[in-house]
Amino acid sequence: MNLYAGLDVGGTAVKFGLADPTGHIISSDQVPTVQGREPLLELLADIVSNLSKSHPVAGVGVGTAGAVDFATGTVVGHSPNLAGWADTPVAALLRDKVKLRVTVDNDANCMALAESRLGAGAGCSSVFFLTLGTGVGSAFVQEGRLWRGAHGMSGEFGHSSVVKDGRLCACGQRGHLEAYASATALVSRTVELARQGLPSLYAQVSVEAARVLGAREIFAAAAGGDAAAAQATSEAASYLACGIASAVNLLDPELVVLGGGMITPDLPFLITVSHEVKRRVHEGVADFVRVVPAKLGNQAGWVGAALLAAESA
Amino acid sequence: MNLYAGLDVGGTAVKFGLADPTGHIISSDQVPTVQGREPLLELLADIVSNLSKSHPVAGVGVGTAGAVDFATGTVVGHSPNLAGWADTPVAALLRDKVKLRVTVDNDANCMALAESRLGAGAGCSSVFFLTLGTGVGSAFVQEGRLWRGAHGMSGEFGHSSVVKDGRLCACGQRGHLEAYASATALVSRTVELARQGLPSLYAQVSVEAARVLGAREIFAAAAGGDAAAAQATSEAASYLACGIASAVNLLDPELVVLGGGMITPDLPFLITVSHEVKRRVHEGVADFVRVVPAKLGNQAGWVGAALLAAESA
Repeated sequence: MNLYAGLDVGGTAVKFGLADPTGHIISSDQVPTVQGREPLLELLADIVSNLSKSHPVAGVGVGTAGAVDFATGTVVGHSPNLAGWADTPVAALLRDKVKLRVTVDNDANCMALAESRLGAGAGCSSVFFLTLGTGVGSAFVQEGRLWRGAHGMSGEFGHSSVVKDGRLCACGQRGHLEAYASATALVSRTVELARQGLPSLYAQVSVEAARVLGAREIFAAAAGGDAAAAQATSEAASYLACGIASAVNLLDPELVVLGGGMITPDLPFLITVSHEVKRRVHEGVADFVRVVPAKLGNQAGWVGAALLAAESA
Repeated sequence: MNLYAGLDVGGTAVKFGLADPTGHIISSDQVPTVQGREPLLELLADIVSNLSKSHPVAGVGVGTAGAVDFATGTVVGHSPNLAGWADTPVAALLRDKVKLRVTVDNDANCMALAESRLGAGAGCSSVFFLTLGTGVGSAFVQEGRLWRGAHGMSGEFGHSSVVKDGRLCACGQRGHLEAYASATALVSRTVELARQGLPSLYAQVSVEAARVLGAREIFAAAAGGDAAAAQATSEAASYLACGIASAVNLLDPELVVLGGGMITPDLPFLITVSHEVKRRVHEGVADFVRVVPAKLGNQAGWVGAALLAAESA
């Protein structure tokens, strides 16, 4: 059977592995990311070369942070955590190095594909996927296929409005879901509320330090009674539910899957979001809508990339 | 060639006609709606019977206001302008009367299908359609097929949020697009602004009377310098653009088509909306996004219903 290499290129690590065409994992590992276009491409080529030593590799899939033109396998947009990666024709340059077909997509698409086929959405006809981390990515999968949009640019629901002209978003516009429901937003808001006087350990913490601690630390603080963390968590859940309900009203997906670094299974945050989504969607879908956590953890990205490689073969 | 009867059941008129399987119009007409389940079903049966006199009819499609369970052809939700129509199994009851296969869908879906295949969206691979009238309906068409959702309940984007917990919507929830961008909302807001002191002829008009005059009268007043009408029109355009941008970010459709009683071609309102959508979408689609008026006018509903009938044959 043909095996495919999947690589998930993030700001801190490259996760990778070998999978069969159905996404069954043969092996997996990860290494720290290096910065700079050429060093990073060399690292990816080395990974593929090493994988090829254990098994012949039939094709390579790469999921990466940043917007990707899927047709050409080129990173289009600026990716804040990958220096020099913008406008890199990753598929063409890596193909030259490894002499294999290379398929490149953005990491949210890869994660969504793996989760919808093998993870939380296995067996579902349609999945709306959101990944919550530094930013908010989204993807819509129908019958196991990603809906890429007319120009390959779908899935930017993180930059859709939940509050018209509201909070400043990293993209420069205002009121976007990402500015209210990302890990970055949750951290900033917690520090802000703490400085405004809500009893909190975060009153003495810089935003930068709080960011290093991350969203999961804030969820833990909220559970432990930290008032600023609890208030910020509650607000983020409410805005996230508002955004999800809008997408559900539009799409009526069989399942909503939440993944990304901010989400762990059994998170109370998820239960709050799920309840509020049910309350906010229109009555025709309120009985059906289901919001669940992703299942594949940090394997989802590279497995999805391997699935795309198998499809492109 | 087989011909199909299409009927578009609205609160004031039933528009109908005969079309071939590609939606080419053979004949069309309209009659006033009658209220009550049985009288309305009798009217629809009479229409089909009369159409059958000129040409044999191979099947019947019905588009109707209100939520519809497409699988069974049953009106599910309450429709404010059609008394006694809720929970009517229209397909089954009309089939008994006319002895033909009957397909039933909601009017927004029918309009979207016709516009995407034959109207403004002809030749486009994907269309996001919004109908603006008493309410706001939506539909998403991919490769000429309606995306109905996992439970047949997609297309309720009119009840998605543009202002979290904002203005009261007819559905009982708050902040929905329909509460800001429908004809009903435009009229109410104009009267409200006039009563708050903006120079306007609407200061002396009751909301009910203003509703009878309708949205087009407000657009005309705005063009003529009525301050309340102009301000309300500008606000509605801005909220509408905000909602459309959110859907475009999620779906990246080839085209956005706006139809319904509120929309006429060459409306300045449309130009405002189109500009603001371009400004609000994420940068990856800003160069591509196009917002255009529907082309088929009040023929879209019945033609789309006839297309569905032809498909179901």
